[in-house]
Amino acid sequence: MTSLLVDRIGELVTNEPGGRDPLAIRRDAAVVVVDGQIAWIGPTGGAPACDVRVDASNRAVIPGFVDSHTHLVFAGDRSGEFAARMAGEPYTGGGIRRTVAATNAAPDTELSANLAYLQRELTRQGTTTFETKSGYGLGVDTEARLLRIARGVTPETTFLGAHVVPDEYKDRPDDYVALVCGPMLDACAPHARWVDAFCERGAFDADQSRAVLTAGVAVGLAPRLHANQLGDGPGVRLGVELGAAAVDHCTHLSDADIDALAGGDTVATLLPGVEFSTRSPYPPARRLLDAGVTVALATDCNPGSSFTSSMPFCVALAVREMHLTPAEALWCATAGGAAALRRTDVGTITAGASADLVVLDAPSHVHLAYRPGVPLVHTVVANGEIAYQQGNS
Amino acid sequence: MTSLLVDRIGELVTNEPGGRDPLAIRRDAAVVVVDGQIAWIGPTGGAPACDVRVDASNRAVIPGFVDSHTHLVFAGDRSGEFAARMAGEPYTGGGIRRTVAATNAAPDTELSANLAYLQRELTRQGTTTFETKSGYGLGVDTEARLLRIARGVTPETTFLGAHVVPDEYKDRPDDYVALVCGPMLDACAPHARWVDAFCERGAFDADQSRAVLTAGVAVGLAPRLHANQLGDGPGVRLGVELGAAAVDHCTHLSDADIDALAGGDTVATLLPGVEFSTRSPYPPARRLLDAGVTVALATDCNPGSSFTSSMPFCVALAVREMHLTPAEALWCATAGGAAALRRTDVGTITAGASADLVVLDAPSHVHLAYRPGVPLVHTVVANGEIAYQQGNS
Ligand SMILES: [Zn+2]
Ligand SMILES: [Zn+2]
Repeated sequence: MTSLLVDRIGELVTNEPGGRDPLAIRRDAAVVVVDGQIAWIGPTGGAPACDVRVDASNRAVIPGFVDSHTHLVFAGDRSGEFAARMAGEPYTGGGIRRTVAATNAAPDTELSANLAYLQRELTRQGTTTFETKSGYGLGVDTEARLLRIARGVTPETTFLGAHVVPDEYKDRPDDYVALVCGPMLDACAPHARWVDAFCERGAFDADQSRAVLTAGVAVGLAPRLHANQLGDGPGVRLGVELGAAAVDHCTHLSDADIDALAGGDTVATLLPGVEFSTRSPYPPARRLLDAGVTVALATDCNPGSSFTSSMPFCVALAVREMHLTPAEALWCATAGGAAALRRTDVGTITAGASADLVVLDAPSHVHLAYRPGVPLVHTVVANGEIAYQQGNS
Repeated sequence: MTSLLVDRIGELVTNEPGGRDPLAIRRDAAVVVVDGQIAWIGPTGGAPACDVRVDASNRAVIPGFVDSHTHLVFAGDRSGEFAARMAGEPYTGGGIRRTVAATNAAPDTELSANLAYLQRELTRQGTTTFETKSGYGLGVDTEARLLRIARGVTPETTFLGAHVVPDEYKDRPDDYVALVCGPMLDACAPHARWVDAFCERGAFDADQSRAVLTAGVAVGLAPRLHANQLGDGPGVRLGVELGAAAVDHCTHLSDADIDALAGGDTVATLLPGVEFSTRSPYPPARRLLDAGVTVALATDCNPGSSFTSSMPFCVALAVREMHLTPAEALWCATAGGAAALRRTDVGTITAGASADLVVLDAPSHVHLAYRPGVPLVHTVVANGEIAYQQGNS
């Protein structure tokens, strides 16, 4: 049994539910971690002695970020496509096929190394829980391979065989859906917690998406959905109807979409890195929050439409571009992400929760938006262990 | 005499002038540093043996960023003002007075510690040359104090007594200008290289700004100017007329302003962190570049309107919001900044230049924009010494 004390915390964001302030901030606090869990929270000076001590020196401490939407198992480079898009080419999602080709050509070792590299990057930026998906295989064995590799680094794995219709099924997409719902799902389900589909014009329509999610649920997976990224569509309402944990993107929303979200318990996951990197309009976050919808922020880290792995950057964008307050943005990036993954053990610093916390190199969480782009992650504790400390200079 | 070798560089951005590609990129290159200067550039494998070796492992290497516009000598916190602004309050520059009060109340030790902290932050983000200013003293002794402290960390110090008219001179601003041009300048000039003024409605008009710059030039300082941030005005043309090295902000530009810049050798320094953090429209960078104006990118790091110290973030904003190519943005953040400081020894990796270079945790400089918010600075060499290496995780 090892114990760790973080004390002299100037501002402790706990996200403890039930209070008036969603962040439930404590001042001059200390946290004791035992065996990977939060064991005690109280005033500095009142804590028991521990094996390891982290002196926060009046810095802010926040729950580790929960990035509920990434695509990290891939190979190949698409920086050229990004540069072309910034020079005026529109984003259509067509480049996914380039990543599929590169990913399928890469050996496991290359995919694992790339994933480990991105995982270290997430850690350095304070992310302690992340979801990641298949979707760059698009074959029975290749999708299962990606999920097997993903499962090595996170329990939050999502089967996204219905990412895009592969070229060879272009003229018979329903045959591809049948493959996804049949042999591909059978091969993938053992490695996945979630089932997902890209419900969008040019990808999968409502009936096809419904078939995929329903098939996944039938074998024990929990549903989530990519919806309403490139335009209006039925995705958000479908997700709510099917009880999806989250509908992700939500860039184009009708009043009916917002009403549906407000009336269900599906989280709206916003991915402002996508809008930044595709130069698109941002989702109507304010309308969602004002309607009482639970909102999550995530990176959508992927080589095509959003190659940021930075939750602090997404928080800054949410404040600047989507008019969230700094407190709302931080809540959405921690507790909101946890809700999108139906987790109560992460996204919070409360007794019994997983000991995932970030010491910011700042006196307040406000600095995540006030100081955009600055690497403010000082120390990361993940599952009770010190996972990162800022380099020296 | 110590020597340092950086080899196995996948992409070396040299900014060597004269070629067709402004970045003058070399592939599979090596750089030898002797006594703080670039001594040799050539292919990996062709380099002489050195005391220290940095293996770039096919990463990209760029010149250290040159941040030609910061305000780093201050005390006090304005994160509350930032949060209020994000909730809808407009930016008027009035909060400067709050920083003036806090700065004048702070002892030298506090100001130096704050400055050292921000300097380490700059280093971690790849900035190896930076300018910084007075302007939060607004008295004879207090302005000189800030410059004395600034001179301890950079030769690029700017006297900005004409930052804002202090309250006690509200009804007689010309008396304040006389103070700035007389005793304050006398006290400050020994510690400064540059003289600057905030030429803007609500701050100093063209005649007042001209008086300050002319007085500064008369005692050997070189002129630069804050101009056209909050609205149209005479500042940009005044700067060109007076031979200013740079006019900074340039958010609101007329055709006549752009013509003036194109016809002179004054650099237009753009500060997109300000527009991000004040939710303002971005400067017309494309029009400037297309007219042949030399453009620099800088952070304007200050506690009021732009508390980012991140040149990579400014590069990403320049691409996303101002339609620069990734290559143009990087050039403006390195060689452009050097031009804004009338320096030829920095902002470039060429024989004889100061050995200031950054190993990116990326194969290409394009990733600075392609991967917004991600801390991509792997290793920083400043003046021939390793000044930073990325923390482990
Ligand atoms: Zn996605
Ligand atoms: Zn300024």
